[in-house]
Amino acid sequence: MADPRFFRRVGPFTLGELARIGGAEPAPGADLSRSFSDVSPLSGDGAELIGFLDNRKYVPAFQASKLGACIIHPAFRDRAPEGMQLLLAKQPYKSYALIAQAFYPQEAGEGYIHPRAIVDAGAEVHSSCVIEAGAVVQTGARIGARTRVESNAVVGRNVEIGEDCEIGACASVSHALLGNRVRIYPGARVGADGFGFAMSPTGHVRVPQLGRVIIEDGVEVGCNSTIDRGAGPDTVIGAGTMIDNLVQIGHNCHIGKHCVLVSQSGVSGSTTLEDFVALAAQAGVAGHVTVGMGARIGVKSGTMRDVPPGVELLGAPPMPAKEFWRFTTWLMKTYEESQKERRARMAGTAETAEEGSE
Amino acid sequence: MADPRFFRRVGPFTLGELARIGGAEPAPGADLSRSFSDVSPLSGDGAELIGFLDNRKYVPAFQASKLGACIIHPAFRDRAPEGMQLLLAKQPYKSYALIAQAFYPQEAGEGYIHPRAIVDAGAEVHSSCVIEAGAVVQTGARIGARTRVESNAVVGRNVEIGEDCEIGACASVSHALLGNRVRIYPGARVGADGFGFAMSPTGHVRVPQLGRVIIEDGVEVGCNSTIDRGAGPDTVIGAGTMIDNLVQIGHNCHIGKHCVLVSQSGVSGSTTLEDFVALAAQAGVAGHVTVGMGARIGVKSGTMRDVPPGVELLGAPPMPAKEFWRFTTWLMKTYEESQKERRARMAGTAETAEEGSE
Amino acid sequence: MADPRFFRRVGPFTLGELARIGGAEPAPGADLSRSFSDVSPLSGDGAELIGFLDNRKYVPAFQASKLGACIIHPAFRDRAPEGMQLLLAKQPYKSYALIAQAFYPQEAGEGYIHPRAIVDAGAEVHSSCVIEAGAVVQTGARIGARTRVESNAVVGRNVEIGEDCEIGACASVSHALLGNRVRIYPGARVGADGFGFAMSPTGHVRVPQLGRVIIEDGVEVGCNSTIDRGAGPDTVIGAGTMIDNLVQIGHNCHIGKHCVLVSQSGVSGSTTLEDFVALAAQAGVAGHVTVGMGARIGVKSGTMRDVPPGVELLGAPPMPAKEFWRFTTWLMKTYEESQKERRARMAGTAETAEEGSE
Repeated sequence: MADPRFFRRVGPFTLGELARIGGAEPAPGADLSRSFSDVSPLSGDGAELIGFLDNRKYVPAFQASKLGACIIHPAFRDRAPEGMQLLLAKQPYKSYALIAQAFYPQEAGEGYIHPRAIVDAGAEVHSSCVIEAGAVVQTGARIGARTRVESNAVVGRNVEIGEDCEIGACASVSHALLGNRVRIYPGARVGADGFGFAMSPTGHVRVPQLGRVIIEDGVEVGCNSTIDRGAGPDTVIGAGTMIDNLVQIGHNCHIGKHCVLVSQSGVSGSTTLEDFVALAAQAGVAGHVTVGMGARIGVKSGTMRDVPPGVELLGAPPMPAKEFWRFTTWLMKTYEESQKERRARMAGTAETAEEGSE
Repeated sequence: MADPRFFRRVGPFTLGELARIGGAEPAPGADLSRSFSDVSPLSGDGAELIGFLDNRKYVPAFQASKLGACIIHPAFRDRAPEGMQLLLAKQPYKSYALIAQAFYPQEAGEGYIHPRAIVDAGAEVHSSCVIEAGAVVQTGARIGARTRVESNAVVGRNVEIGEDCEIGACASVSHALLGNRVRIYPGARVGADGFGFAMSPTGHVRVPQLGRVIIEDGVEVGCNSTIDRGAGPDTVIGAGTMIDNLVQIGHNCHIGKHCVLVSQSGVSGSTTLEDFVALAAQAGVAGHVTVGMGARIGVKSGTMRDVPPGVELLGAPPMPAKEFWRFTTWLMKTYEESQKERRARMAGTAETAEEGSE
Repeated sequence: MADPRFFRRVGPFTLGELARIGGAEPAPGADLSRSFSDVSPLSGDGAELIGFLDNRKYVPAFQASKLGACIIHPAFRDRAPEGMQLLLAKQPYKSYALIAQAFYPQEAGEGYIHPRAIVDAGAEVHSSCVIEAGAVVQTGARIGARTRVESNAVVGRNVEIGEDCEIGACASVSHALLGNRVRIYPGARVGADGFGFAMSPTGHVRVPQLGRVIIEDGVEVGCNSTIDRGAGPDTVIGAGTMIDNLVQIGHNCHIGKHCVLVSQSGVSGSTTLEDFVALAAQAGVAGHVTVGMGARIGVKSGTMRDVPPGVELLGAPPMPAKEFWRFTTWLMKTYEESQKERRARMAGTAETAEEGSE
């Protein structure tokens, strides 16, 4: 289904292979030898297609689906259309993700340095890397196996990049050490000077930023996002953290493992996000604070204080999400009542005025 | 007036030609053969200059203006200074735009591939294109007539770009099909992976993003803005839509025709903006919602719900703009009254205290 | 201490030299001939290290510090640990900044054009400049002494850049005149078309943007920030202004001297910020307004109106910062009281109901 100009599909896979890949359980009676050629939304039509159901909202679409197979939570088994093959999973979307990855694997390809890439003689690039046209790898940089550096990206002096990484088109990385399976998306900036200077009435004086950026395994940094290097300590991004587009991370921040930072959110300098913290779109966290494990800061919300683990905050200044909605409802109701009173008063005045004019 | 190092002016044009170019009506008695050499603000001074009046606020500047000609709404005809030539238009700013474009045309120039551009042998680039130094055009890409690819931009594998487009310096485009007259500004990112993964307590699992970005005719995408490709369906930007700098558009979004997305606004995944929707600066729209035709979301405002056509919203959570201002006024008034009471109470207490001390 | 792969340290310096460099006063009895090899946080340990104390909060760390020397405000002299050398300064952080700059000077190096840089024959590049691999300098551009253009940056046609500037990796500059000591960070965009068009129900018409960007001495523009050129007048950034990452500045803006614009803040077109204005993270200023000298707009706050000099605003719509906190406290208290009443009422109703059921 995916446009073959842009996506290379492999396969087919048997249902048995897909069950294993997705960590899913074939429903009793499933035909493990059936062959599947592609993933598909529920609306697709074809005996060789496999989809998933992860959201109760789409049960009707599931019931009407003409897919050959579907990955579902066991609870929905009874709703399956006649003849559909079923794979059962506690986390059907995760199983789907793994299966889709199998059909559309990251292109590894052969190691290759484009003749118009600019790799310094003092850089160490593993023979299995792909370095595209226009990419620059500066002296002393070390790049691990199967890593791809896309066109016009820049890997700075002495930067270390692990295995199976991707440095996107026009991205730049300096003063940084990257683990394995790190993906820096097009245009992201890693390792530039932090925003550090001594303010003074005669002008601000730059403070040299002497730290680095440490990015652990499996991190993704979205398009045009920016991660400043530390001022003295390092800026650290924990393993598995997902950073969306246009996100800002200030110097000296410690971002925990498996955090999720949605688009246009920002974290000011020297702040700690513990593991599994989530910042929604356009959220912000001030400098020098700690957000506890698993806490969530809602859309457009912000905090200037420490946040305890596990809470979900909304608003700026923020409050617990449920409280925020209760508060908002109260405020609107109070407002509407006051408006009603005002209108009643005005109507009363008008009546009196009319009476008076009689 | 414009710095000739950066802008190439053509002309002169006669008033008659300018009337035709701008779709404006010469006022009775206008001298259609008079020659004009440049556009100018009302404050300019010169018989060969033409300006415009679009805002009642600037009527005094118009009355004092020493320009040779002016494009105005017919309503202001009586206020024109003696001897000024007048072009009448219902939309004077639009007429001005067309006339300014005539004086300062987009540079088409001759087709030209800089010897230090990197155009893959498998790409099809029309002979009238300009491909600047350092630009990369990957294999299978197709680029239409008169399109310009600026320095260090990257056009990815199999991307299609129509005629009269511009891909700005250091921009990158992948997994995308672009119509005609599309302008991708410097540093914009089109077609990267959407932010899609299955969250899980043991780490998040990437979901392959198998869609594309479809950009229709006449769209502009501002500097460092980011448009993710779809997860399965495509991300679509409708004809004539204007996107400012640092804007985020998530995967699977359908942005209608002639929308306006001002700087630092964002649209989360799978959301639909119908035609002529406007997002003001730093506004946001959540995922999976629909904003109706012509609706406007104000500065720093956001919505997590569907928005009916034509309304103007302010705040987060948002309300109709007029209501927002009424509400804000009420809230401030209620606050101030409570403060007044509090002060009166404190003064009363103070008096009582003083009385008591007598 | 700083990773020598990324930072080149010079020195050592004697205490006397450091006092002079930092504009600080040696405390009576200080040994001016003592040698120092590096800067350090207070937690460092070594007779050859110098640190600073700028924040009362860190007095205990200062008292326990094992550094050989420290820059402090005279008021803290009595708290110094035995044997520590002291430099006294009214602005210890500024003194520290100057001393750290001395240990870690910007790398000037010899003038050098990388053979894979692309410098047009019609450009004038001073012999002391460094132009890195992949950088593009277009025809007519003029670049002053000791300026560095990093990999894959683009300096557009006829752009002028002064002395001791830095154009970061993958940044692009067009239609602009830059003073001395200007630093454009990686991925920043200077001089692109402003967001100007005549809106119309049949589609929006581009208005040619005929101005430039003028950047005065000592300005810094952070990663992936965007500064549009003027529509007719110029966009101007005053001397010494510090712009963080992902900041947007619209066309025709006049930003004063020594302003500070923190990450993800934005200024809409034709707005003036007077000198020493500060915008906190994610703040916004609407178009066509003036923010007075030294005013501060807080995090996530915004103004659509003129702001008088010196005030500090918070909120959107904004109010004076102290008032904002007072207002917020009042609002929360009012809400909580209403909730208490409601609960009391419900308890009362419940009691009545219980009584009724007896």
